[in-house]
Amino acid sequence: MSIRIGILGYGNLGKGVELAVQKNDDMELVAVFTRRDPSSVTPVTEGLPVYSAQDLAQHTEDVDVLVLCGGSATDLPTQTPEAVKLFNVVDSFDTHANIPQHFAAVDTAAKESGKIGIISVGWDPGMFSVARLYSTCILPDGQDYTFWGRGVSQGHSDAIRRIEGVADARQYTVPVEAALNAVRAGENPALTTRQKHTRECYVVAQEGADLAAIEKQIVEMPNYFDEYDTTVTFISQEELDRDHKGIPHGGSVFRTGVTGDGTNKHVIEYSLKLDSNPEFTGSVLAACARAAYRMNQEGQSGCKTIFDIAPAYLSAQSGEELRAHML
Amino acid sequence: MSIRIGILGYGNLGKGVELAVQKNDDMELVAVFTRRDPSSVTPVTEGLPVYSAQDLAQHTEDVDVLVLCGGSATDLPTQTPEAVKLFNVVDSFDTHANIPQHFAAVDTAAKESGKIGIISVGWDPGMFSVARLYSTCILPDGQDYTFWGRGVSQGHSDAIRRIEGVADARQYTVPVEAALNAVRAGENPALTTRQKHTRECYVVAQEGADLAAIEKQIVEMPNYFDEYDTTVTFISQEELDRDHKGIPHGGSVFRTGVTGDGTNKHVIEYSLKLDSNPEFTGSVLAACARAAYRMNQEGQSGCKTIFDIAPAYLSAQSGEELRAHML
Repeated sequence: MSIRIGILGYGNLGKGVELAVQKNDDMELVAVFTRRDPSSVTPVTEGLPVYSAQDLAQHTEDVDVLVLCGGSATDLPTQTPEAVKLFNVVDSFDTHANIPQHFAAVDTAAKESGKIGIISVGWDPGMFSVARLYSTCILPDGQDYTFWGRGVSQGHSDAIRRIEGVADARQYTVPVEAALNAVRAGENPALTTRQKHTRECYVVAQEGADLAAIEKQIVEMPNYFDEYDTTVTFISQEELDRDHKGIPHGGSVFRTGVTGDGTNKHVIEYSLKLDSNPEFTGSVLAACARAAYRMNQEGQSGCKTIFDIAPAYLSAQSGEELRAHML
Repeated sequence: MSIRIGILGYGNLGKGVELAVQKNDDMELVAVFTRRDPSSVTPVTEGLPVYSAQDLAQHTEDVDVLVLCGGSATDLPTQTPEAVKLFNVVDSFDTHANIPQHFAAVDTAAKESGKIGIISVGWDPGMFSVARLYSTCILPDGQDYTFWGRGVSQGHSDAIRRIEGVADARQYTVPVEAALNAVRAGENPALTTRQKHTRECYVVAQEGADLAAIEKQIVEMPNYFDEYDTTVTFISQEELDRDHKGIPHGGSVFRTGVTGDGTNKHVIEYSLKLDSNPEFTGSVLAACARAAYRMNQEGQSGCKTIFDIAPAYLSAQSGEELRAHML
């Protein structure tokens, strides 16, 4: 029998989960839930039912795992603890500072309902986190480096779009090649924020806007741009739509460390190059949905992160198959 | 209270485990066990007791986890199932084809004794295996590539040393740069054995030996060299000792795959660059010793691989600390 997956929230990420479920033979997408008018939502999968998010409670018998595809700022802090009362759930909550609080809320609700709630999975937090954990455990005498990009930062693009006179924008976070190479070579450099990443902004200005003023506002924007070397390039809407419509991302997690008396150095690198951030994140969520289902089938409940999931739970293969073919 | 670690077998790997335990504040090395005359073994750690392997049963109260540092060919197939009757154990059994059989033997013994036996950890099998597992679960529609090196292959070096007229030898496995780059670029190449790795041999010949005959025997040796482009360089013992005394290794695991209709490609890479193969492997074994202890403290028993260990068990930090600082 297939694992029956529901999706709550049908934006880029929800669609990414839908596409990921299609790639997994042991899963079946049974419904999309939306806060919009269901008739306004057309999933990629022909004939897939779309229900109102208000009707979730009517579908507890049809859905094994609900994948929550809302935003971390306002949706997930309430949605995940609510939904785990009804379903095993998975989310990609990524506000790092609030993870302890989110974990506590989901854990309490999940233990009461006897369900599993897996939070904060995707690639960072998620696969990058687990790469950091493994490498730190192996090389306790060492140092971490995380580089992001080259990739689109939705948050930074939004920040630019809020500037007066800006019609549209796309921001790329770009790791500094020299810094990457120094880390990769095991040189253990001390790197400032500015030395690790640059920011490239492609901006469509409204007609008659003051370009110099827009550029100044971008490069001086606190938190977002002021600590970085930022380049601003004004382009037309046509160019933006033609050359910057993808949502690529990725990056690298390094740990460099020593063993013994320090003579022997070691470099661990985990890197991702992703053509589509939401489709990759959706693929991680789908694998975690399998884990949520299987852990709950074994009688486990409560909130889990990627740290708490034995990797075998993510796989459709049996322990025997994994040991024979993948170990 | 510290986790009390014992080591069985004090060669390169045993010493690597000893050095790794020193880097972990929550562990304490309490004894080395050896099949040699204990008085002939001098650990790095001053004052560390060395006992005969025959006396293992007398130390079940002093040792929480015994790390087995013998060879996979003849030592571990008998040592691990025997030792797990007395202790939680960890080994680095790496004969891939025999893992299912080794797992079964250790699992039966461990379930009877109520102990945990973690097998086949190190970097391959071990960290490379878990990298393959995660990436395959995330990108089911994709392809794996594993490259080894640049690094010393002990098995290939030994094979050369068995040739008549050879005094000493060191063999490096070297990934082909063009193949690595094609995979890294997401080109999904079909690669033969010869296209993935080359083999570099540094050989010390005995006086008066027939160099041409030695070279021919090396490059044509079935299984070891015949499927590779192999270079043989004759050097003096002094040069070998001076330039090739390290035991570096490493490599890369890739998965390249697509999501959705195949338009979006993704590349996942996990790479290691290790100055000392045994010290890094020893460091993985030490982290897994922590997991063995903690899983057993929770009442778990049986044989486990890296696939069965929730990553948090490998860390000395609490769940709260990990979520706050590493997620």
